[in-house]
Amino acid sequence: MPIVDSRSGAIRATYTREELVTKAQEMRAWNMVALTCANSGHTGGTLSIMDIAAALYLHVARHDPANPEWEDRDRIIWSAGHKAPAMYVALGVAGYFDDRPVSFNGEPLPGFDDVKGVEQCVLLRRLGSGFEGHPNRLKLPGVELSSGSLGQGFGVAQGCAMDAKLEGRDNRVYVITGDGEHDEGSMWETIMACAHYKLDNLCCIVDRNNLQIDGTTDEVMQIAPLREKYEAFGWHVIEIDGHDMEQILDAFREAETVKGKPTCIIAYTIKGKGVDFCENVCGYHGVPPKDGRDGEESLEACIRCLEVEDEFNDERLDRAFAIVQRYQEAVDARIEATMPRFSRDYWWNSADTMKCAMDATRNGFGWGVAKLSASDQVVAFGADITASIRMDYFYKPDGKTTDVERQKRFFSMGIQEQNMTVAAAGFAKEGKTSFIGSYGVFVTGRNWDQLRTTCAYNRFAVKVADAHGGISVGPDGATHQALEEISVVTCIPGFSMIVPCDSRETERATLAIAEVPGPGVVRFAREATPVCTREDTPFVFGQANVIRFRGEADNFADAFETCLASDYESENEDLAIIACGPMVPEAMRAAYILKLERGIETRILNVHTVKPLDRVAIVAAAADTGVVITAEEHQVGGFGNLVAGAICQGDLSRPVKLRMVGVRDTFGESGQPWELMKFFGLTAEHIAQTALELLP
Amino acid sequence: MPIVDSRSGAIRATYTREELVTKAQEMRAWNMVALTCANSGHTGGTLSIMDIAAALYLHVARHDPANPEWEDRDRIIWSAGHKAPAMYVALGVAGYFDDRPVSFNGEPLPGFDDVKGVEQCVLLRRLGSGFEGHPNRLKLPGVELSSGSLGQGFGVAQGCAMDAKLEGRDNRVYVITGDGEHDEGSMWETIMACAHYKLDNLCCIVDRNNLQIDGTTDEVMQIAPLREKYEAFGWHVIEIDGHDMEQILDAFREAETVKGKPTCIIAYTIKGKGVDFCENVCGYHGVPPKDGRDGEESLEACIRCLEVEDEFNDERLDRAFAIVQRYQEAVDARIEATMPRFSRDYWWNSADTMKCAMDATRNGFGWGVAKLSASDQVVAFGADITASIRMDYFYKPDGKTTDVERQKRFFSMGIQEQNMTVAAAGFAKEGKTSFIGSYGVFVTGRNWDQLRTTCAYNRFAVKVADAHGGISVGPDGATHQALEEISVVTCIPGFSMIVPCDSRETERATLAIAEVPGPGVVRFAREATPVCTREDTPFVFGQANVIRFRGEADNFADAFETCLASDYESENEDLAIIACGPMVPEAMRAAYILKLERGIETRILNVHTVKPLDRVAIVAAAADTGVVITAEEHQVGGFGNLVAGAICQGDLSRPVKLRMVGVRDTFGESGQPWELMKFFGLTAEHIAQTALELLP
Repeated sequence: MPIVDSRSGAIRATYTREELVTKAQEMRAWNMVALTCANSGHTGGTLSIMDIAAALYLHVARHDPANPEWEDRDRIIWSAGHKAPAMYVALGVAGYFDDRPVSFNGEPLPGFDDVKGVEQCVLLRRLGSGFEGHPNRLKLPGVELSSGSLGQGFGVAQGCAMDAKLEGRDNRVYVITGDGEHDEGSMWETIMACAHYKLDNLCCIVDRNNLQIDGTTDEVMQIAPLREKYEAFGWHVIEIDGHDMEQILDAFREAETVKGKPTCIIAYTIKGKGVDFCENVCGYHGVPPKDGRDGEESLEACIRCLEVEDEFNDERLDRAFAIVQRYQEAVDARIEATMPRFSRDYWWNSADTMKCAMDATRNGFGWGVAKLSASDQVVAFGADITASIRMDYFYKPDGKTTDVERQKRFFSMGIQEQNMTVAAAGFAKEGKTSFIGSYGVFVTGRNWDQLRTTCAYNRFAVKVADAHGGISVGPDGATHQALEEISVVTCIPGFSMIVPCDSRETERATLAIAEVPGPGVVRFAREATPVCTREDTPFVFGQANVIRFRGEADNFADAFETCLASDYESENEDLAIIACGPMVPEAMRAAYILKLERGIETRILNVHTVKPLDRVAIVAAAADTGVVITAEEHQVGGFGNLVAGAICQGDLSRPVKLRMVGVRDTFGESGQPWELMKFFGLTAEHIAQTALELLP
Repeated sequence: MPIVDSRSGAIRATYTREELVTKAQEMRAWNMVALTCANSGHTGGTLSIMDIAAALYLHVARHDPANPEWEDRDRIIWSAGHKAPAMYVALGVAGYFDDRPVSFNGEPLPGFDDVKGVEQCVLLRRLGSGFEGHPNRLKLPGVELSSGSLGQGFGVAQGCAMDAKLEGRDNRVYVITGDGEHDEGSMWETIMACAHYKLDNLCCIVDRNNLQIDGTTDEVMQIAPLREKYEAFGWHVIEIDGHDMEQILDAFREAETVKGKPTCIIAYTIKGKGVDFCENVCGYHGVPPKDGRDGEESLEACIRCLEVEDEFNDERLDRAFAIVQRYQEAVDARIEATMPRFSRDYWWNSADTMKCAMDATRNGFGWGVAKLSASDQVVAFGADITASIRMDYFYKPDGKTTDVERQKRFFSMGIQEQNMTVAAAGFAKEGKTSFIGSYGVFVTGRNWDQLRTTCAYNRFAVKVADAHGGISVGPDGATHQALEEISVVTCIPGFSMIVPCDSRETERATLAIAEVPGPGVVRFAREATPVCTREDTPFVFGQANVIRFRGEADNFADAFETCLASDYESENEDLAIIACGPMVPEAMRAAYILKLERGIETRILNVHTVKPLDRVAIVAAAADTGVVITAEEHQVGGFGNLVAGAICQGDLSRPVKLRMVGVRDTFGESGQPWELMKFFGLTAEHIAQTALELLP
């Protein structure tokens, strides 16, 4: 069934097989334009699924772009949410954006009336555009589901199919999955349950491109033989060449005829299909053409490979980049308008003084784990995101060369956060110290019950690299921006947790967490943040540091004096800023702003260890100043309420005024890291403004 | 390999096949004695696995009861932790408790020198005995793993097997799983990963007894065909009669010879095997003989069925019950010694006045969901614990009779908390209001990422019955005592959460959470707690109630006056107790104690809605009294820190003293509900004592 008018039943558009082949190439081109404009995103898996996307949206599925919520439409659910750009171009080509204005978080932007249809996809991963790094159903028409955490959309599709049966609707449900996604146990729950409920109105497509992030599916986690597995789970299975349009259409037709069981189409595809330098290249999983618009591995090279130079000529590309620039300028203006203003610009490295190096805290984790892996009593595990979180330093202690002995103690666990956690616990049971890691959401949340019951209740030395924490993950968007770890981890009995402030402190935190008995977490980030400590900055697990601004200096870190809180004598400051993680350098910059602008003296407390909490230091800061701001790159209160709890139980003799800076009970967004810090009100300027509102 | 001396290598004990058959019957008898003494626990699955347990511990595995930590021992891991009693008797018969003193939380108890060996198992599920409802490896020798949350021990076994390979040890790893446990996706992660790592030193035993809690495995969630599934996942599979000792021993021998892949022994068993009235009876999953020691379905009937009357004669049974009584008296004395004392006994229903009905809050959920299911826009899901959490009222609105129309909107999802959550989200996507539920740990923790990313980020109306919350779950022990839900739920953007105080308020909370847009949680408990509200007690979502003690009355609830906090005028009380859930009646009783003992006036704040929090009421209570105690049946601070955060941001003009009553960053224990409330310091007496310490 092609695209229809849901009111009249008339066909709106129909495509022949040959036209679908052409459309798929055009969609690949749009996809690569969008990724290049975004300068981030997933090349490999969007190209491998594109022929199927074209078939589904332009020929197979019954739907109406003018009526996205039409009850009788076929549902197309992308369980592999990172393929979002392929969905966006499919929706665009199908007509979903023909009447949609370009918007900033739902509010139409003036001056973009000329940008309609698929061309809007070039706003991929831009703050507020709706074209999030992973899909958000509340922001774009035609997006059935906000997804991105693997192995969840499939079950949602199951629910949709069950509801259709309950209500007697004849619509079909299509769900697009990745092959690596089949590592996740939740997939097999759904696969089992779909067969249990005989969901013959559901069709799962597996994009079998054989590549994950860390290597081939055979290397990362053996999922073969997929056909036998699905069949043993009670499914009808069709295997096809996922780039042969005839086979694709035949498979969908066959699936419709199968009764009493769900159908799985295993589509053998080529990751990066259509762009020679991307095809079957593992490194092209999550990056755009690396030479940008022009070069050997560039957008223009993509266009040539796809043989769509006529349509995607210079004029069209110029226009695409111009649209993005215009949009970004509009967004920048909006954000800058919300920023608190001071007498001068205090932004990072905006002046000739107070220079600050930037480095990603994940690097500090890498340095730490590289030291720890010298011991044969330490083991580490990969969750198909190994190098990105610097877990590869475990077996590449210099960051480059593989140490064969250490590599024997590293184990690829695939995208199985739950099993990784308990298998690591098994090693810990045998006396090892086990390091696991992934995106924070997946390695403190997906595996929460495992952390609680197997790791903590057993007191196993499982150490969690809570990587890519916070909104600073940037363009990946909300699904991947962990903002809840402090809450979910510190409530578990016996779990230690450190949220270090920069790459140097992250190395120290990593070494410290390895030493502490039982399970522990170190939270760190992907993007570069200010290096605000010095070689001589103290670091003691469980003890906060006091940081005081002492006057402008050439280098940012030299402008401050730091000591253990227990060594500090009160200077009766006007204000305390109690912070952890990357909010510590923002707190420091706020202290600098407040001093220079108003002569306000600030005590900064770097509470790197959030469990156990240095209650003494917190109570002292509150008692000595009477005015406290907490700062966290986290759902507000996760850290702030711990501080408040300590203060309230501190039996202070005078009342304390307190405000919390953090993300205000809302999900993250796609955008650039610093742009998001501004958008969510997490900068030094926001802290300083809060202080000025609070102080008498 | 039989039981050996790990130092000399000599055989300590060996059993012929015939002797193993006899031993298994003896073990079944001990098992039933223990369950009857505990008056709780899992009959069906312990009896079905017992022949295999006897074979493993007395013949197959290489281990040394005198050296439980022997590095070269074979590991036996019980992934199906609820079968703990079978493990305990196996350990006891193997000799692990021969030199172990009877202890209270590790401290040897005087007067029990005569109780050694397997006889100690009669202390099953008693507070402090070590024989927890689900295994705790830190409390008993020979217990390899604390388990109980299904689908985790298997992965730990994988880790142990991988470590053995890494270290070149030749020990084998055995893991005992249930068939229903195979619903869990985490199982399939492990099954996939064990094959990936070619763990031929690992052997998984599936206790294939075909029964779960809600029905047969076919009905609850179809896991068949298991052989084909394991084979498709790359395992060697052996199918046996799990009650034929020769087949059992042959299978273990065969497993040892298989190279390059792990082996799964699918043991077809009879749930309740050996006790006629339990055999293949679904209702005997999680209960002991229902007639106690004597009667048609009693311990003595078990002994007769097992044909062990000679050994388990009256004298032995008398002695068993006497040991338990002695132990419980010792524990009671210890606990009572820690209780704060007042001029009289204020305990529930201990006097002729202040009488209070007791009712389980789960009943209130049942009443609520029964009303809601009248709408065809409401659907509900079962996680193999349906009746226990009263989710069955959805289709049995009177608690008894099945309503066929409503039943069509109820879906069994097996032990698949993750898939249940996302499938429910699929229905919510289609416009339904979806109710899911299970033990709190599993339905807010096991599925945390699903709640966050699929339910909350999509703003789906998935309503969570967070059942059996708190330590009051009792004898099941720590793995099943959820104490972290407030922390893990309230940090998720857009999630509503209600923690009602009694069964009446739970019904209202259930109706309210259905109305609130988006996802929400209602937390309630299994055991009966005081009914402290009246028909005319106000309940408004998001608004706290003020409760004031007005003088002793015949009925507890009549002794108090309750109004919406927003309607309350301060009486300048001496103290505020801010509580939620079953701590509200304790707070009320504390107010009663404080008034009668010392004339202290208390404002009780029932903060049933923990998200969104009634900050205004909290700040007013703190401002008006200056002295606050928070009370939660939860890890302390999960609720208390929310209150502290509100107070600190309330700009009070005088300092507030605050203390928190709750579980102090420790896991729960097996025991009786009220015993645990006393042990963990959660009673009115503890609150009152805290108040007296705090007040000037």
